[in-house]
Amino acid sequence: MKIRPLADRVVIKKLEAEEKTKGGIILTGSAKEQPQEAEVMEVGPGGVVDGKEIKMEVKKGDKVLYSKYAGTEVKLEGEEYTILRQSDILAIVE
Amino acid sequence: MKIRPLADRVVIKKLEAEEKTKGGIILTGSAKEQPQEAEVMEVGPGGVVDGKEIKMEVKKGDKVLYSKYAGTEVKLEGEEYTILRQSDILAIVE
Amino acid sequence: MKIRPLADRVVIKKLEAEEKTKGGIILTGSAKEQPQEAEVMEVGPGGVVDGKEIKMEVKKGDKVLYSKYAGTEVKLEGEEYTILRQSDILAIVE
Amino acid sequence: MKIRPLADRVVIKKLEAEEKTKGGIILTGSAKEQPQEAEVMEVGPGGVVDGKEIKMEVKKGDKVLYSKYAGTEVKLEGEEYTILRQSDILAIVE
Amino acid sequence: MKIRPLADRVVIKKLEAEEKTKGGIILTGSAKEQPQEAEVMEVGPGGVVDGKEIKMEVKKGDKVLYSKYAGTEVKLEGEEYTILRQSDILAIVE
Amino acid sequence: MKIRPLADRVVIKKLEAEEKTKGGIILTGSAKEQPQEAEVMEVGPGGVVDGKEIKMEVKKGDKVLYSKYAGTEVKLEGEEYTILRQSDILAIVE
Amino acid sequence: MKIRPLADRVVIKKLEAEEKTKGGIILTGSAKEQPQEAEVMEVGPGGVVDGKEIKMEVKKGDKVLYSKYAGTEVKLEGEEYTILRQSDILAIVE
Repeated sequence: MKIRPLADRVVIKKLEAEEKTKGGIILTGSAKEQPQEAEVMEVGPGGVVDGKEIKMEVKKGDKVLYSKYAGTEVKLEGEEYTILRQSDILAIVE
Repeated sequence: MKIRPLADRVVIKKLEAEEKTKGGIILTGSAKEQPQEAEVMEVGPGGVVDGKEIKMEVKKGDKVLYSKYAGTEVKLEGEEYTILRQSDILAIVE
Repeated sequence: MKIRPLADRVVIKKLEAEEKTKGGIILTGSAKEQPQEAEVMEVGPGGVVDGKEIKMEVKKGDKVLYSKYAGTEVKLEGEEYTILRQSDILAIVE
Repeated sequence: MKIRPLADRVVIKKLEAEEKTKGGIILTGSAKEQPQEAEVMEVGPGGVVDGKEIKMEVKKGDKVLYSKYAGTEVKLEGEEYTILRQSDILAIVE
Repeated sequence: MKIRPLADRVVIKKLEAEEKTKGGIILTGSAKEQPQEAEVMEVGPGGVVDGKEIKMEVKKGDKVLYSKYAGTEVKLEGEEYTILRQSDILAIVE
Repeated sequence: MKIRPLADRVVIKKLEAEEKTKGGIILTGSAKEQPQEAEVMEVGPGGVVDGKEIKMEVKKGDKVLYSKYAGTEVKLEGEEYTILRQSDILAIVE
Repeated sequence: MKIRPLADRVVIKKLEAEEKTKGGIILTGSAKEQPQEAEVMEVGPGGVVDGKEIKMEVKKGDKVLYSKYAGTEVKLEGEEYTILRQSDILAIVE
C-alpha cells in the first residue's frame, strides 16, 4: 500500500527526537510557526497547480524542515505521515 | 439516476470503517483538517475552471484521501456521497 | 415577462419536496453548505466574466444541485426563483 | 445636469412599488441580499477596469434586478439614483 | 507649492455646501458609503499601477462624485484637499 | 554606512514640524490614515516586484506625502528613517 | 551540516547587540513591525515562486534589515538562524 500525493503535495515522515539529536539540530520556533525535521517519503508530480507551473524541488529521501502546523497527518500501516504542499517545506538539510 | 459533477468537482463515497481497517489505514488528524478515505464515483470534465486550466488527475474507482470538511454531502437513492473539488483531494491510495 | 440573467448567472426554480421524493433524492448537508435540487429556467450568456472566459455548462431544463445559501431569491408572477452564478451549481442530476 | 458614471458603473433609478405591482414582480430575498428592480439611466463606458476588459451589457432604459445593498445613493434635482457596478446587476427583466 | 499625485491618484477639493445647493445636487447615502461632490485639482500620470494599465479618465476642473471615506485629507496653504485613487471616483457631474 | 532598500522600497526622512510650517503645509487626516511629509533619502531599484514590473517614480531629494502608518522606522547613526514601499507614497510636493 | 533554503527563502543569522552598537545602528520600530539586523548565511535558488519569477538580490555575507516577526527560527549545531522569504528583507546595510 502506497500514498501517491496529488499535484504539488509531498508525503513526509517526521524524524524521531533521537535522530534529531544525532544530527545536531534542535528546532526552536515562535508560537506562530514551529519547524520540524522530516524525511520525504513520496513526492507529487507537480505540474500546473492552481494555474501555476510548479516544479518539484524535493525528492524521496531528502531531509527537510517544515512548519509544524502545515499539512495533514495520516497513519498508514502503523506509521504516521504528513501530507503537505511543497511550498510548506522551508529548506533541505544536507 | 446519476450525479454528473460540473467543472473540477468529483463525487466520492466515503469508505466504511471496516473497509478502512482491512486496508490497514487508520486516519488521524489535527482538529483543523481530518482526512478521510473515499472511493471516487464520478469525475467532472475539468477544463477552464475559475480562469485556470484544470486537468482531472483522479478517475472513477480511485481510493483517495480527502479533507473531512471539504465539499458537500448529498444522499442519492439511500447512499451518501460527497461532492468536492479535485484540489480538496490530498492523495490517491494504491 | 422574463428574467434574462447577466454574465454567468443562471435562474433556477427549486424542485418541490414531492418531486424530490419521486426522484429518489434526499439531500443532506452540513450546516455550512446544504445543497438543493432545482431546475434551470434561464441561462446567462457567459463570456468574459471578471476577466475570465466562462463557458455555460448548464442548459434550460437541467436538474441541478446547488448550495442552499448561494444566490438571490426573486418572485416573478407568483413563482419563486433563485438567481445564482454557474460556479455555485455543484452537479447536474441525470 | 447629468451624472456620467466612470468605468463599469451604471446609474439606475429604483422603480416605485406601484410600478412593481403593475409588472407583476414581487421581490423577496434573504437578509443577506435583497434584490430591487430599477431602470438604467446612465451607463459608463466600460473598457479596462481593474485590469480586466469589461463590456457593458445593460443599456439606458433597461429594467434590471440588482442587490439592494450594492452601490451608492445620490439625489439629483429631487430624484434619487443609485450608482453601482454592472457586476452588481443580476438580470435584465424583459 | 503644488501636490503632484503619484500613479492613479487624484487631488480633489470638496465643493462647499452652498455650491452644492446651487448645482441642485443633494447627496444622500447609506452609512456604508456617503458620496461627496468635489472638483479635481490635480491628476496623477496613470500608467502601470499595481501591475495593471490605468488610463486617467478625469481631468483638472471636473466635478466628481466620490465616496466620503475614500482617500486621505491634506491641508495645503490653508485649503483642504483629498488625495484618492481614480477608482474611488464614482462619476463625473456635467 | 548606507541603507540600500530592496525592490520597490524607499528610505525617507520625516520633515520636522518647523520645516512643515515654513512650507505652509499642515497635514490633517482621518484616524484611518494620517499623511506625513518626508524627504526621500534612498530609492530601491524597482524592477519585477511580486510579479509586477515597478518603475520608481520618486528620486533622492523629493519631498513626499506618505501615510503615517506605512513602513518601518529605523535609526541610523542617530537619525530616524522610514523604509516603505513606493506605493505607500501618495504624492510629491513641489 | 548545511541548511539549503528552497525557492526564494534565505537563511540569516541575527547580529548580536554589540555588533549593532559597533555599526552605529540602533533599530526602533512600531509594535507592528520591528526590524532586525542580520547577516545572510544561505540564499535559495529563486526561480518561479508562486507563479512569479523571483531573482535573488541578496547574497551570502550581506548585512540586511528584516522584520522581526518574519520567518522561522531554527537552531543548528548550537547557533540560531532564521529562514525567511527574500521579500521580508527590507534593505541591505552597506
